[in-house]
Amino acid sequence: MTPEHEVRMPQAGSERLTRQLAFFLEADRLKTVLRRTLAAGASRRENAAEHSWHLVLMALLLHEYAAEPKPDLARALKMLVVHDLVEIDAGDTFAYDDEAHRDKAEREERAARRLFGLLPDDQREEFYALWKEFEERRTPEAKFAAALDRLQPMMLNYASSGYAWKRYGVTAGQVLDRNRIIADGSPALWEYAETLVREAVSLGFLPV
Amino acid sequence: MTPEHEVRMPQAGSERLTRQLAFFLEADRLKTVLRRTLAAGASRRENAAEHSWHLVLMALLLHEYAAEPKPDLARALKMLVVHDLVEIDAGDTFAYDDEAHRDKAEREERAARRLFGLLPDDQREEFYALWKEFEERRTPEAKFAAALDRLQPMMLNYASSGYAWKRYGVTAGQVLDRNRIIADGSPALWEYAETLVREAVSLGFLPV
Repeated sequence: MTPEHEVRMPQAGSERLTRQLAFFLEADRLKTVLRRTLAAGASRRENAAEHSWHLVLMALLLHEYAAEPKPDLARALKMLVVHDLVEIDAGDTFAYDDEAHRDKAEREERAARRLFGLLPDDQREEFYALWKEFEERRTPEAKFAAALDRLQPMMLNYASSGYAWKRYGVTAGQVLDRNRIIADGSPALWEYAETLVREAVSLGFLPV
Repeated sequence: MTPEHEVRMPQAGSERLTRQLAFFLEADRLKTVLRRTLAAGASRRENAAEHSWHLVLMALLLHEYAAEPKPDLARALKMLVVHDLVEIDAGDTFAYDDEAHRDKAEREERAARRLFGLLPDDQREEFYALWKEFEERRTPEAKFAAALDRLQPMMLNYASSGYAWKRYGVTAGQVLDRNRIIADGSPALWEYAETLVREAVSLGFLPV
């Protein structure tokens, strides 16, 4: 097997396409960013690329539960495709790692500037804006996308009998505090998340 | 680590949401379906879930190169999110395995009926229609999505110095024949694909 990025890709017919394809291959590295959660069907840690796919599917599947005013689905899908790309440089920051969250915004801002800077100007701005909107959680699309980003690992953690919660000593109180913002994006999914935490506690997947 | 699907998920407030979430967790298994291509940044085989994410990103990035009439981007994104789900049951069929292609359609049709059958009726029909449209390659969205699905592994194979081409004895003629349909979805990307094959041959990544 070949070490990553050893090969120089062919030049495209235009400078623009060459830049777009270079970004596309750089994005491939998201497949190497490991999260703390296990993929339920895989019994191994999930990577940020497959996590992103799972969230796009989730948005397509569950957008009827989004809070009013209803988000534009296409924009939510785009946001979820790009939302984790900054982790190529900044790494995945575990939801319950308060220390790592202190400089998360700064690390990710730097990553966004470098990564999206590989793109032609118009797309650099488009992708940066999608990422920033997701991070700021002010629009209906961003609130809905963030709700899914919080609920998905809760479901996978439950499905693995609480693997990451137990391994990293996370409590039910922390899970509820950290993920309460699901309610802003979808009251119905927050209701489900609360049920899930309650049952996780009763089954011993999650300490109180 | 816990064997897959040992845990019964909590019931949601409605039968509808319970079904949607069961489908969502079943879909997680796409992360275990391995393709022949290496993820360039990972030096390991790519799985079908991260491949699907990469294609959704690719559509967002390259839709300006789609053939006329221009596809609806949101529909192309949705199609790419769901296009490989049938591989959970049917497995990945290697592009150059003629034998496996003989019963591919039948295996995938069966898989589509089971998997999308987990969903409420309206979504079963929506997801099945997206998958079928992708397979039939008649609409602008499906032609564009198929073009990306063919170009992405060519790029990853090139980036790995022709790993899968060499390992499975694929020739330049086979790559051109198999992927010529890229031109239906995007003449500009087919031009790039032809350049890529030419350079792969000249660098010894791909036998003539």
